[in-house]
Amino acid sequence: MKPVWLDTIHSDNTPLFMWPIAPKIGDTVRIKVRMRQNAEVKRVYLKRKYNGEEIVLESQDFFTKGDLVYYTFDFQVNEPMILYHFIILTEDNMYFYNQVGVFDHYTVDTFDFKIIANYEGPAWVKQSIFYQIFPDRFYNGNPDNDVQDGQMLYDGHVSQKKNWDDPVGTHEETGNLNFYGGDLEGITQKIKYLKELGVDALYLTPIFEAPSVHKYDCTDYEQVDPCFGGNQALKELTSKLHKNGMKIVLDISINHTGINHKWVQEHPEYYGKKANGELEFWAGVKTLPVLSYENDSLHQVMYQNQDSILQKYFNPPFNIDGWRFDVGHNVGRLHQYQGYQQLWRNIRKTLKEQNKEAYLLAEHWGDAGEYLQGDMWDATMNYFGFYRPVNKYFGVKDIFYSWRIPYPSSSHNNSTRLEKEITQYYGKIPGQLQDYLLNALSSHDVIRFIDWVEEDTLIAAIIFQFISKGTPCIYYGEENGQKGEPGFTDGNRVPMEWEKKKYNQRIRNTYEKMIRLRKTNPVLQEGSFRFLDCGGPLVYLRFNDEAAFLYIHSNELNQKVELDLNILPNIDQDQMEVIFGQDILYSLEKNQLSFECRCKQAILFKMNFRP
Amino acid sequence: MKPVWLDTIHSDNTPLFMWPIAPKIGDTVRIKVRMRQNAEVKRVYLKRKYNGEEIVLESQDFFTKGDLVYYTFDFQVNEPMILYHFIILTEDNMYFYNQVGVFDHYTVDTFDFKIIANYEGPAWVKQSIFYQIFPDRFYNGNPDNDVQDGQMLYDGHVSQKKNWDDPVGTHEETGNLNFYGGDLEGITQKIKYLKELGVDALYLTPIFEAPSVHKYDCTDYEQVDPCFGGNQALKELTSKLHKNGMKIVLDISINHTGINHKWVQEHPEYYGKKANGELEFWAGVKTLPVLSYENDSLHQVMYQNQDSILQKYFNPPFNIDGWRFDVGHNVGRLHQYQGYQQLWRNIRKTLKEQNKEAYLLAEHWGDAGEYLQGDMWDATMNYFGFYRPVNKYFGVKDIFYSWRIPYPSSSHNNSTRLEKEITQYYGKIPGQLQDYLLNALSSHDVIRFIDWVEEDTLIAAIIFQFISKGTPCIYYGEENGQKGEPGFTDGNRVPMEWEKKKYNQRIRNTYEKMIRLRKTNPVLQEGSFRFLDCGGPLVYLRFNDEAAFLYIHSNELNQKVELDLNILPNIDQDQMEVIFGQDILYSLEKNQLSFECRCKQAILFKMNFRP
Repeated sequence: MKPVWLDTIHSDNTPLFMWPIAPKIGDTVRIKVRMRQNAEVKRVYLKRKYNGEEIVLESQDFFTKGDLVYYTFDFQVNEPMILYHFIILTEDNMYFYNQVGVFDHYTVDTFDFKIIANYEGPAWVKQSIFYQIFPDRFYNGNPDNDVQDGQMLYDGHVSQKKNWDDPVGTHEETGNLNFYGGDLEGITQKIKYLKELGVDALYLTPIFEAPSVHKYDCTDYEQVDPCFGGNQALKELTSKLHKNGMKIVLDISINHTGINHKWVQEHPEYYGKKANGELEFWAGVKTLPVLSYENDSLHQVMYQNQDSILQKYFNPPFNIDGWRFDVGHNVGRLHQYQGYQQLWRNIRKTLKEQNKEAYLLAEHWGDAGEYLQGDMWDATMNYFGFYRPVNKYFGVKDIFYSWRIPYPSSSHNNSTRLEKEITQYYGKIPGQLQDYLLNALSSHDVIRFIDWVEEDTLIAAIIFQFISKGTPCIYYGEENGQKGEPGFTDGNRVPMEWEKKKYNQRIRNTYEKMIRLRKTNPVLQEGSFRFLDCGGPLVYLRFNDEAAFLYIHSNELNQKVELDLNILPNIDQDQMEVIFGQDILYSLEKNQLSFECRCKQAILFKMNFRP
Repeated sequence: MKPVWLDTIHSDNTPLFMWPIAPKIGDTVRIKVRMRQNAEVKRVYLKRKYNGEEIVLESQDFFTKGDLVYYTFDFQVNEPMILYHFIILTEDNMYFYNQVGVFDHYTVDTFDFKIIANYEGPAWVKQSIFYQIFPDRFYNGNPDNDVQDGQMLYDGHVSQKKNWDDPVGTHEETGNLNFYGGDLEGITQKIKYLKELGVDALYLTPIFEAPSVHKYDCTDYEQVDPCFGGNQALKELTSKLHKNGMKIVLDISINHTGINHKWVQEHPEYYGKKANGELEFWAGVKTLPVLSYENDSLHQVMYQNQDSILQKYFNPPFNIDGWRFDVGHNVGRLHQYQGYQQLWRNIRKTLKEQNKEAYLLAEHWGDAGEYLQGDMWDATMNYFGFYRPVNKYFGVKDIFYSWRIPYPSSSHNNSTRLEKEITQYYGKIPGQLQDYLLNALSSHDVIRFIDWVEEDTLIAAIIFQFISKGTPCIYYGEENGQKGEPGFTDGNRVPMEWEKKKYNQRIRNTYEKMIRLRKTNPVLQEGSFRFLDCGGPLVYLRFNDEAAFLYIHSNELNQKVELDLNILPNIDQDQMEVIFGQDILYSLEKNQLSFECRCKQAILFKMNFRP
């Protein structure tokens, strides 16, 4: 029998368990691990790497707070990355506690806690609500710059000027040349709308000169596309955003350009070639030739020179706040040449010297653990640690696999799978980076979540998004329950609905409530997280020393649940507040919570701890 | 309920499941995964990384052999390392199979199978029986070079000439200046003994000029210590070994020198310094100043120049076959400076250009996964994946933790822990490297295994060592049951017992039998391995397409065991041979093996498959 107190052991890299949370080389850090007081524990150790040597520190001090005991460890940060886990010694056993849990056997280093010295994290990110905009489809602020019917011929298609309420159609039909007239001026004009919603930061899909409407086929990184208002419109947008205390992150593909980029003729040496001398194309798409970082000059123009592309936009007059790197997982990887690690380290070093608060975000659909160790990216669009497991749990096909294989629908709906997928992946990522992961339910690359599920499930997923470890990102219109054209990915790129009466008010209210909660509760910005096991329902906890949020969702109805909350301080029922799930009946005695899951609606409790 | 066929799924990087096993860039590899035939499996996929992209290949072909079905995948090796796992699709579920097992949820990349293109593995290693010698204590071939009483004063101690049967004492008593006269001439004279035992390769602890008897405090890497016979004796030893078809691996610390090395005066820039300018010492030992690879010239003299230390001994007249790097985990790691990855990559590249069959072996006590990805070391002394879990299982204190903390004895003796520790660690290591891991029960750094356990347990452990994935290494005298002086680590360095009548013949016979088995059965050199779960006993399997070895050991007596062997082809009882455990009663029907564990002796079966 596994002793119950084992499940109450907790530590991580949040302020409650590590201080300072952003140490420099030479600083002394204090690490704490806490658990329910019990007679079994004899000694508590922290095993760390020290210049490669495994050393074992015994806790020299502890303090108690209620029934919880905190064991403390103080040591100097002597090297750039310190790996550690805890060893808890009882009369009969040794337990090893790392980022994925408690074990009675030796564990591999992969899931150790980590301290990254001198890590420059973009602290503003975790306090932000992100909002993703596909600029052509958000708001037409200047009809004079609209692309006209027949203005362009490209890749076998002709450009079309669309009305705001025209259907978007598939890219096979439109060739991505269906323009609705949205532009940066339009975004600038809607800052008030965004601010009222509570948005703090924008992430725009590409805006640099390119023939297609998505602009991943860039022809000039130096120019904002005229149809979006040119460089002047970007200057004005960033300036107005900053005046309103908001940030902006731009999307760029440094993996490939458009086939019409002048480099294809003038600098063929920048591009990857097959053995037969033909260009390498991204995913075989003939408009997207792949850049090869085997070429040193490309490094210079892309990020090394003072006027290089990646540096330029951090400087006045643009002053952007971060980059979202398109297909980050492909960049610098082309068969024999796999210099991507050094490439990203160099990019990070260069850009952080310029703007240490810059957010370096990348697209990555799989396990991005190797990129998230403090020396390359700050974060990914968290498809692997949020979007994919969450979608699968809430009954949506995982678009990643459903693209490729006939995905069995009954492999959904299992909270254990969700827990394992998220816990194991987060277990590889240093705690100092976890808050920066960008958690979205929809994006320009996936069908809108609302088009998959019924409303109760959607609401449950939104609540889960906003309490999850990481930073939430809303895809434009999601906040009002805007649907896409169903059945195909491009259907998500519908023009933004601006008519208030068409909003889904229940969904809108959910977003407003969750945004408010997130902004007013630091526990949701940088608190600890844990999945709790109660044999069925999904139970997810965020906590710090002031408060906790407890999320519960079940796919099975009428399930009676007994939940042990001994990982938290002692709570009385009057300290519990029901945030969602108003008609729930529950009882709490000695930190044992009992209730019945009576519908597919999510339950959210808040618990306030007595000081 | 988990379907039974899930446990029969197997693949790895052995010749049965991957061909070729040492592919070059551009080669097409064939990967196979096999399982019991069953109606549930609808499709089988291989998910691999391709320039960072996750791509999914459906198996286009399969063949059956008896009741086993093999699904095949052919693809070109386009990049230096390919990560992959399998996806098995049933009507209701998706299963993910990687190097640690089968899961019904997404898995992190850490445990994916890996193909390393252009990996230069020292193929001779896996066919070898290694033998570790502490030269001063093996055989005195030339009394003229013996260190004399009082010949040396060092670190507060005086050198002592010892008689072969004197006790060794602790290093606190002797200062490591107790010399027994063993030398390289002595090893040369005993080649016949080693060859008759079946030894193929020697690993000698350091032999370069140094005051102490262990010689980790080197004063001149260019000279074999005169008391071991000087450079001439090394030339003769390697030459005679090679004439006898044997190999030799030398031990070197490139992490630190002895304090009397001339570099301390002449090249203080080679050494690490504290903030106050004082030398950094290894583990605080004042005779062992740490080398700092922040200094470029040190790279030149250590491995880059043609006459550099690491290159020189691969050349005539020495022609050694490999290096064992002392404290490999510390090298190139000194607080802010952690350039060890690039250092080891450079060392590997340089040495493999000189001798692609060179064995690059390092000391490492923990998870060495990051060093074992094909671009740094070939192997470690496998403390973490063999010695420590095996010792713990067989009831020996884990010396690693027992040095540091009061180790609870009842945390021993659990086959599940052993399995998890080995499976998870091997799960991080590419299959192409697993055979090179050096598995030892004793070394100069740990108490002799025989001094911990009773004879049946020792025999059980020896058998486990020789059937384990990896290459076995015998510590001198172990083959004859030679004991150390009990209770302290240096007690393992007793002078070799040469009187045949003092041999423990049961132990000797076990070694001879296991050495013979290992040499005559390729399955033990490079076959697949699996732990099988039968609820208690330790069950370990090696197999290829010709034969299997099945190892069983239980710490609980009178345990009735039912073991499902459906991971193997169909076997009749007449194909089973009992190698150890002569009095065992067992029955086999439809690949279900039944027997009772009646003693602490290990059971070893061999099964020969019908062609």
